[in-house]
Amino acid sequence: MSFPMLSSPWFPFILLILSTSVTATQYRIPRLSPFSRTFLPNAKASPVSDDFKTFYYNQTLDHFNYKPESYTRFPHRYIINFKYWGGANSSAPILAYLGAEGPLEGDLNAIGFMTDNALQFGALLVYIEHRYYGKSIPFGSRQEALKNASTLGYFNSAQAIADYAAVLIYLKKKLHAKDCPVIVLGGSYGGMLAAWFRLKYPHVALGALASSAPILYFDDITPHNGYYSIATKDFREVSESCYETIRDSWSEMEAIASKDNGLSILSKEFKTCSPLNSYSQLEDYLWSMYAGAAQYNQPPRYPVTRICDGIDGASSGSGTLGKIAAGVFGYEGKLSCYNLEPKNETETDVGWRWQKCSEMVMPIGTDNDTMFPPYTFDLRSFINHCNQLYGVSPRPHWVTTYYGGNDIKLHLQRFGSNIIFSNGLKDPYSSGGVLQSLSDSLLAVHTANGSHCLDILRANETDPQWLVKQRETEVSIIKEWMRKYYADLKESKQ
Amino acid sequence: MSFPMLSSPWFPFILLILSTSVTATQYRIPRLSPFSRTFLPNAKASPVSDDFKTFYYNQTLDHFNYKPESYTRFPHRYIINFKYWGGANSSAPILAYLGAEGPLEGDLNAIGFMTDNALQFGALLVYIEHRYYGKSIPFGSRQEALKNASTLGYFNSAQAIADYAAVLIYLKKKLHAKDCPVIVLGGSYGGMLAAWFRLKYPHVALGALASSAPILYFDDITPHNGYYSIATKDFREVSESCYETIRDSWSEMEAIASKDNGLSILSKEFKTCSPLNSYSQLEDYLWSMYAGAAQYNQPPRYPVTRICDGIDGASSGSGTLGKIAAGVFGYEGKLSCYNLEPKNETETDVGWRWQKCSEMVMPIGTDNDTMFPPYTFDLRSFINHCNQLYGVSPRPHWVTTYYGGNDIKLHLQRFGSNIIFSNGLKDPYSSGGVLQSLSDSLLAVHTANGSHCLDILRANETDPQWLVKQRETEVSIIKEWMRKYYADLKESKQ
Repeated sequence: MSFPMLSSPWFPFILLILSTSVTATQYRIPRLSPFSRTFLPNAKASPVSDDFKTFYYNQTLDHFNYKPESYTRFPHRYIINFKYWGGANSSAPILAYLGAEGPLEGDLNAIGFMTDNALQFGALLVYIEHRYYGKSIPFGSRQEALKNASTLGYFNSAQAIADYAAVLIYLKKKLHAKDCPVIVLGGSYGGMLAAWFRLKYPHVALGALASSAPILYFDDITPHNGYYSIATKDFREVSESCYETIRDSWSEMEAIASKDNGLSILSKEFKTCSPLNSYSQLEDYLWSMYAGAAQYNQPPRYPVTRICDGIDGASSGSGTLGKIAAGVFGYEGKLSCYNLEPKNETETDVGWRWQKCSEMVMPIGTDNDTMFPPYTFDLRSFINHCNQLYGVSPRPHWVTTYYGGNDIKLHLQRFGSNIIFSNGLKDPYSSGGVLQSLSDSLLAVHTANGSHCLDILRANETDPQWLVKQRETEVSIIKEWMRKYYADLKESKQ
Repeated sequence: MSFPMLSSPWFPFILLILSTSVTATQYRIPRLSPFSRTFLPNAKASPVSDDFKTFYYNQTLDHFNYKPESYTRFPHRYIINFKYWGGANSSAPILAYLGAEGPLEGDLNAIGFMTDNALQFGALLVYIEHRYYGKSIPFGSRQEALKNASTLGYFNSAQAIADYAAVLIYLKKKLHAKDCPVIVLGGSYGGMLAAWFRLKYPHVALGALASSAPILYFDDITPHNGYYSIATKDFREVSESCYETIRDSWSEMEAIASKDNGLSILSKEFKTCSPLNSYSQLEDYLWSMYAGAAQYNQPPRYPVTRICDGIDGASSGSGTLGKIAAGVFGYEGKLSCYNLEPKNETETDVGWRWQKCSEMVMPIGTDNDTMFPPYTFDLRSFINHCNQLYGVSPRPHWVTTYYGGNDIKLHLQRFGSNIIFSNGLKDPYSSGGVLQSLSDSLLAVHTANGSHCLDILRANETDPQWLVKQRETEVSIIKEWMRKYYADLKESKQ
């Protein structure tokens, strides 16, 4: 079986990678990556402001071990924008973006929640890269760092959030900013890190905005089909006939592909720039396109609508194949030919492949209620796959052991505070998100029409009112945390 | 400079080790050990009940790393008493004692809070050993495990509490006891672990009783002289003249020791079983005796009173030397000779020496306001000392980075719940304890006359009323946590 690969969505700054590998894998776990980090299409068009200054912290390789090699240091990148900060004397806040599974630079322009709100908060903006991505590489080089399980072993979320704690404590000390409240935020995997950071390091962060963080997509807490059920629903809500066409298309395409000249027929129909090598190449492309369109089904372009407009609008004689092709053309826009080849692997692909095979074991599969081909997540074969890749097994229960997740309301309704779990319910990953407030300060904030991480992206004039309002709600919740904190701080000084 | 060593207190089951080494060290950090774990004097007199069943869990060597060697397993001992348990069907609670810096067996009889309250709670009693102590040894043998920093590196608190989480999650699953609330408890270092466990694993433990846990004795949160100030006060409150005699005795004894036949004079005066080898041997013995008497100044024997009765009751012509000797005799009881030799090293000595030299860096010193000889904790020389011993440096700021401690009320007054910080204010370690409630469920419960870990020891008919009451308060707080939990649980099932 082959693997789904990268499509080239033309909504501006998002690149979706659905699989993690150009080498064969049967694990169709949608990639958790809110933003393009490596191939940001408009990165050149929107240069990063000079207000962002880059620094490196001398980070500890292993926080949880004291053997000599654990003390090894590596340069850990963080980026600061001082422009809006009210300063330590006024205990002005620090907004800290916790990097996720990719290089940090792509996020500087993308994460509008930081820059859009810096002024009103008078906030210092800090962006901290995740270890093993971007410029934050141990062992001197990516090649060494990614060599094998012995060097990759330190590449995990507990180490990463300990890194964040170390950087933030160091920074607060350096800036004499002991009393400045820190709000951490992140999206997708980074959103999980933000929520977990607040839970594990409440003395470092006053609160967390965890955008589209599927912290419940572990250990069978969420039904395996959660992701693809929502993706399917997204299409179905746009158009029942579009959904039916897609659902019924797979067997038809596969039947065509199995013919002698089947791949040429498909290549021609889809106007591929180069001939298809296999049916699975097409299947992977389409699978990825549909999932990505659902995950990032955001204004103003609404890719699901584009696809369905294409499918439903195909000329009456098109047949299923022509309709699906018209969906692709609708999604990609008018081009002379369409590149359905798997894209080159990114840093994120490589890194997240390891993370999934060590601790981020998210059991995601399809079933007959979805419009996707059948795919069952089988833990045993996933473990074998990881063992073949790395020689070590995943620890599928570690995330729930360390961070919890089972019966989350029962355990957290009287513990912890100051986390916003934000979700857009059109986002397939919202199936693994916290959609019900756990207490009066562990708050679920979601929008019926939102997509993956939409709330923390840059605000636009075209943003619909519900999105504007969601962001305002989040800001006002954070302001309330700060208000209480400053009152507590004042009292503590008396 | 030499080192303080073990005295042989004759109050029954407590053995105090003030230093950590029979090899020279200048670090007079009182040992954090509530109970004798290795030389329990009356262990034979009180055999462990057959109700305690021993089990071993196949524990992961490194929870926070995925290199191949991290997956190594070791047998992790835990002991269960099923006798009082109401069972999984009634969601009856689990009381889990978190082992500290020594083998577990010594604690089974000592920790009365478990056995004394099992019946009224209908509780399963679980005792979990701390890695690298007792029978919970990685690498096949103590010799291998303690060989050098490469094997010792995994020996730290974060790994230990992750072990506890793994065991408790496993046990609850095995016993079909998912809904049974877990209350963790521990004393001294074990008390720190209990408090930290509730903070880090709220999904595993509903609450924690942290007895005499000096979680604030890190990173200069607590004044360095805190411990010895309270020890001094303990003596002064018993007798001003006793305190003055001790305070003034050191220089006098040292002057005698420096004479030609000084050590014989001292040996004779103190009726030593074998001649003193050096003045520091005597100094160490006395230092340790005073600190230990203060730390464990508990009913019905009140060792501080015994010492001061000896000192103050010495015949009028005794002089300082005779008075101090009479203090020793009062403390040790009437013997034909007194053994002032350093005791053999225990497992606890060896283990805690590593733990102090890696993460448990507690800056404790004396000053002129105390009755002890001058001793300044100097971080730099401590680091050198550890480097000489192990070839690696301590991480003196790690405890506050991972667990917090600075401005604890500010950070926790709106975060976390269900921890009792219990202290006896006569306990010198209470200087580093949480003595003020942080919120309405992070509660400080202390007694003016209590000593180290007294509340969790076995109840006695001779216990004073304030101690009986302290324990009742703790039990009623825990019952209230459970009451709320069962209400939440019921609601969650609806």
